[in-house]
Amino acid sequence: MTEPSPTLVRSPVDRRPGRPRDEDIEERVLAATLALVDAGAPVTLGRVVAGSGASRAAIYRRWPSLTALLAAALDQGREVLRVPGDGDLRERLFGLYLDGPARVAESYTDARFRRRLQLTLADRALQRAYWDAHVNRRRLPVTELLQQGVAAGELRADLDIEATIDLINGVFYYQVIVRGENPLEPATRARCAAALDLVWRGMAAEPR
Amino acid sequence: MTEPSPTLVRSPVDRRPGRPRDEDIEERVLAATLALVDAGAPVTLGRVVAGSGASRAAIYRRWPSLTALLAAALDQGREVLRVPGDGDLRERLFGLYLDGPARVAESYTDARFRRRLQLTLADRALQRAYWDAHVNRRRLPVTELLQQGVAAGELRADLDIEATIDLINGVFYYQVIVRGENPLEPATRARCAAALDLVWRGMAAEPR
Repeated sequence: MTEPSPTLVRSPVDRRPGRPRDEDIEERVLAATLALVDAGAPVTLGRVVAGSGASRAAIYRRWPSLTALLAAALDQGREVLRVPGDGDLRERLFGLYLDGPARVAESYTDARFRRRLQLTLADRALQRAYWDAHVNRRRLPVTELLQQGVAAGELRADLDIEATIDLINGVFYYQVIVRGENPLEPATRARCAAALDLVWRGMAAEPR
Repeated sequence: MTEPSPTLVRSPVDRRPGRPRDEDIEERVLAATLALVDAGAPVTLGRVVAGSGASRAAIYRRWPSLTALLAAALDQGREVLRVPGDGDLRERLFGLYLDGPARVAESYTDARFRRRLQLTLADRALQRAYWDAHVNRRRLPVTELLQQGVAAGELRADLDIEATIDLINGVFYYQVIVRGENPLEPATRARCAAALDLVWRGMAAEPR
């Protein structure tokens, strides 16, 4: 959702002097929304207008609803992690999950993660919008990696890829949500590594 | 926390007429706390006193802090599930996790579960208290079942039991927290069953 809308075609002659560029508006609206979230304040259209200086019309041109805007704001800083290109499949998968949290933490705080979860648990429409537009998109590189492993005969032919990703992602969520631990802590990371190892044993093709 | 405090020794001669029994007070305090939670109202000692009719002293005799009381109230209806006594280890483990949610749902609503998660995500002390007094206690029967499996040579001798339980519990939490699905839905249950099967393959001892 951070990409400009594809329906907006911009050219230099399009710009009137003094009129903020579309990217500026988009950034300001997302920043104003996130400021409300971080402050624990309710996110209303009026508050976003006041905080960003953008008009209601400008906001609705970019996001179909306040829910979609809030979902996009909650995802700010959560880049789609790149699957490591080096190593065998196991190393790449483990690298993605065990080194990923440290990279995510650079731009996405634990407090914001917990706040996102609170808001999505309180609002099912937001939870659905966040899943569709953001979580599902982040799962794609992992899906492709596992599909390659199945095609190469390294992973079981009957592997349930959706269930596998739920399982791996779930153990990381569990650390924060139920244990209240930070996945960057060595003991937590070690427990997640042991869990990943267990999943790996279950997903690997039987030796011939 | 629903058991009377072990320090309270009661006998019939102890009771003065008109004085509510200790169990009554305990139940009323927990019910008043839960009513605040269900209403989305802040849980303060004053509100609990007003809602239950119990005195501050009576409340603090039973729970060391408001946090401990809130954790106990949030756990009401979440009984410790019994591990099925019949079948082999795999059947018992699968029965516990795949039939458990339906039994829990009889006394513990999805809305309350989501509310509990919101409150514990917002308050780290509450999260810690809830983990120590309640979640950890519910993990015990599973821990014992897996220990038996290791002792019997059915599960790998080097199985990391803590990581295994995190993994299995995590996939169920993920359905509610990230996907926004109800674990009782057939498609969700099937995905969890596939995940459990994957974990089972990873934890089973290698065939000799």
